Amino acid sequence: MPNPTAAMLVIGDEILSGRTRDANMYHLAGALTDHGIDLKEVRVVSDDAPAIVAAVRALAAQYTHLFTSGGIGPTHDDITADCIAEAFNQTIDVRADARKLLSDHYEKTGRELNEARLRMARIPASATLIDNPVSIAPGFTVENCHVMAGVPSVFQAMVQSVLPLLSGGAPMLSRTLRIERGEGDIAAPLGELAKEFSDLSFGSYPFQNDGIYGSNVVIRGQDPIRLDTAFASLTALFPQ
Amino acid sequence: MPNPTAAMLVIGDEILSGRTRDANMYHLAGALTDHGIDLKEVRVVSDDAPAIVAAVRALAAQYTHLFTSGGIGPTHDDITADCIAEAFNQTIDVRADARKLLSDHYEKTGRELNEARLRMARIPASATLIDNPVSIAPGFTVENCHVMAGVPSVFQAMVQSVLPLLSGGAPMLSRTLRIERGEGDIAAPLGELAKEFSDLSFGSYPFQNDGIYGSNVVIRGQDPIRLDTAFASLTALFPQ
Repeated sequence: MPNPTAAMLVIGDEILSGRTRDANMYHLAGALTDHGIDLKEVRVVSDDAPAIVAAVRALAAQYTHLFTSGGIGPTHDDITADCIAEAFNQTIDVRADARKLLSDHYEKTGRELNEARLRMARIPASATLIDNPVSIAPGFTVENCHVMAGVPSVFQAMVQSVLPLLSGGAPMLSRTLRIERGEGDIAAPLGELAKEFSDLSFGSYPFQNDGIYGSNVVIRGQDPIRLDTAFASLTALFPQ
Repeated sequence: MPNPTAAMLVIGDEILSGRTRDANMYHLAGALTDHGIDLKEVRVVSDDAPAIVAAVRALAAQYTHLFTSGGIGPTHDDITADCIAEAFNQTIDVRADARKLLSDHYEKTGRELNEARLRMARIPASATLIDNPVSIAPGFTVENCHVMAGVPSVFQAMVQSVLPLLSGGAPMLSRTLRIERGEGDIAAPLGELAKEFSDLSFGSYPFQNDGIYGSNVVIRGQDPIRLDTAFASLTALFPQ
């Protein structure tokens, strides 16, 4: 049975302006691979409601799961929750369960649960909450869409909360051979090998630095024995 | 006049599997901001022809420019050039100008211009070449789509070759204030300020590490005087 598929939507001007280097995509990609869910597409859009709604609808329709990051805090530019409600044609309001999480937390820390912070309890009607052990304000899941924070430590905690609840397939395994030869020299035999093991995926990722160049050849698949067999053929083709 | 817009398409399984952390998106985002071109959307897709063709068509139609990275090397998984030709309904073959660049280069370095390397001279019929001072094999521009390599050093060199040829608008300027207070405490006055300066964009990017939390508030705009005025109001609102 093929693995479940996934897309990710990163929401926020800070990535598109070059201010911030993305960390969440890299983290989620690795976590999904380990869990046996195939990440097929990522999109990054700005804090713009029509762009967010359109991307959520397109990606949620096309893949088993959609994971979003960013835009669920208390400030004016945090519009993700409202956009998700619109994309799934749901109402959204401050919800008692989320409000209680926040009021308990702010009571303990002596801070005020003001109107801005209450925005973080705005949750679409049918959503289930995603636990946030780092800073309490929850993420949420609507249908197949998992809505998480943009701050990397919070994002990672939410991924850890939600991922065990999702069925995964066989984890995608990989073996990598570093070959210090030009890609042009290895391309023909490598292409033949990829054809011979057409049930596996072969990628060639060239590098060059400090005058050394070559390629990391990565074989991916779910069957460890096939992977070992293919890797043995690869190392025989390109002895170090 | 509004700035030209852009999208980026990152092509390659290695980002989606979590093997590689993207560097090209971060580099291009910064370079475009400096050049006065607004990066509006990024997509990452795997080495899958239908997915690449569909994304190229959608993004090239929607934005002034499309920049792609990855998939133009000599190995079997390098399918970008053929996908670009298909997306723009053009023929593609080994082209004399690109072939000459490669044959001159390999003659000098004593390596063989074999069939695999010749794949890097496959260029769509109407394309103009993008200079690659690092490893010679060129990128190319078809209509509004700029096709570049995935290896970061080569990608960056190609960006430097192509960007000066494109008209940019006024560079987007930004000022950042680090505020060590909870986002929930600054949200209301910040929202008011954002309304007052509605010609500028206000973003709040929370952080928390080592027990210190707060937010970087970023104001963006093209008019330096407006930006200074808004930044003065911001610092008055949140004195350090």
